[in-house]
Amino acid sequence: MKIGVLLAGCGVYDGSEIQETVSVLIALDELGVETVCMAPAMPQHHVINHTRGEEMSPARDVLTESARIARGDIADLAGVNPADLDGLVIPGGFGVAKNLCSWAFHGPEARVNPEAARVIGAMISAGKPVAALCVAPVLVAKVLQELGQTAEMTLGNPEGDSPYDIAAFHGGIESVGMTPATCALGDIVVDETRKLITSPCYMMNATPVKILEGVRKACTRLVEMA
Amino acid sequence: MKIGVLLAGCGVYDGSEIQETVSVLIALDELGVETVCMAPAMPQHHVINHTRGEEMSPARDVLTESARIARGDIADLAGVNPADLDGLVIPGGFGVAKNLCSWAFHGPEARVNPEAARVIGAMISAGKPVAALCVAPVLVAKVLQELGQTAEMTLGNPEGDSPYDIAAFHGGIESVGMTPATCALGDIVVDETRKLITSPCYMMNATPVKILEGVRKACTRLVEMA
Repeated sequence: MKIGVLLAGCGVYDGSEIQETVSVLIALDELGVETVCMAPAMPQHHVINHTRGEEMSPARDVLTESARIARGDIADLAGVNPADLDGLVIPGGFGVAKNLCSWAFHGPEARVNPEAARVIGAMISAGKPVAALCVAPVLVAKVLQELGQTAEMTLGNPEGDSPYDIAAFHGGIESVGMTPATCALGDIVVDETRKLITSPCYMMNATPVKILEGVRKACTRLVEMA
Repeated sequence: MKIGVLLAGCGVYDGSEIQETVSVLIALDELGVETVCMAPAMPQHHVINHTRGEEMSPARDVLTESARIARGDIADLAGVNPADLDGLVIPGGFGVAKNLCSWAFHGPEARVNPEAARVIGAMISAGKPVAALCVAPVLVAKVLQELGQTAEMTLGNPEGDSPYDIAAFHGGIESVGMTPATCALGDIVVDETRKLITSPCYMMNATPVKILEGVRKACTRLVEMA
């Protein structure tokens, strides 16, 4: 079994969330499946100094930076054939909402990167499972909207301990036709029809153990569905 | 209990190995101890494009890049008081042998970054435990040599499945007064006198599960000794 891992850079504020991504690689390895890391070759929306939260220059490339987490073992998304994959995991991090789509800037009016839309859309259309972690459900919501489909999904618990406005995210995905569901840190929401698994991860205040716990549940369910 | 995690950048070829570092953060969180990530504010020796292995420009800063793994929660090594720490973990990655010391270029004649030498030396002198993963034992070997001390330590199994010349690394640390020990992937070597724990990690060909296995053993022993 071969599971794709779609990356968006290397770092929570401008790329893929590193701890979530490594937790995915651990969880899929524990499940004995082969992983295929992939990312688009394109400039990042911007580069954030992670010590201060400020923009810095020059530009960086999404594929090149994503390769750091994957130790160089990564595919250009443009060359990925979704028929070769049995499932897809999308870790979170702001890069998903800045590079793979523009939700961070345009909210529900976000545009989706065409290669990301192609691969995610093909997985959904083929009835293969997709796990979207942390903020990644907004990307899947936009792809589903373009396909004229809907799904139940979570960004977390609006009443829980979070640095973000989970209720606003849930309102956003609802406005593009999705059904938001409340979910606790470390747990998952499964849409059985659409084969979509979502988990809050670092949308809530968390530590690495809780991230691995939620990721493990999501990946276990994904592999069961694949 | 407060355990320091000394970082050298963000990425196996020019910084800290990301999967090893996240495994350390998971393992220490599982053990219920507080972690303090730290790195020196200094230019990386160089920046490597992790898709091709080639150098790229411009320069990057070790602390700024390390902050990506730590989600911004990181201390400048220059401000770290070793008296505040109960133990120290040093994940691997070429950055340890390129930024924290120059072993990658000068072998046993390597120079050690003064701030790294100060903090590691203070931990050893205070009888506090240090865990050095992957290639990080070469850094500790140089610090011990400067202190006129010795320890048993491992870079892996010279007869095992590795992309590197483990025997040459063992010869190198022996030449600066250390005692090399053979160790299998996923296992640890403990010098009880020096309170030094070492584990091969990605010095051997490995997958994420085996990395977490070795890191967990190393961190568990570290916390027991602290």
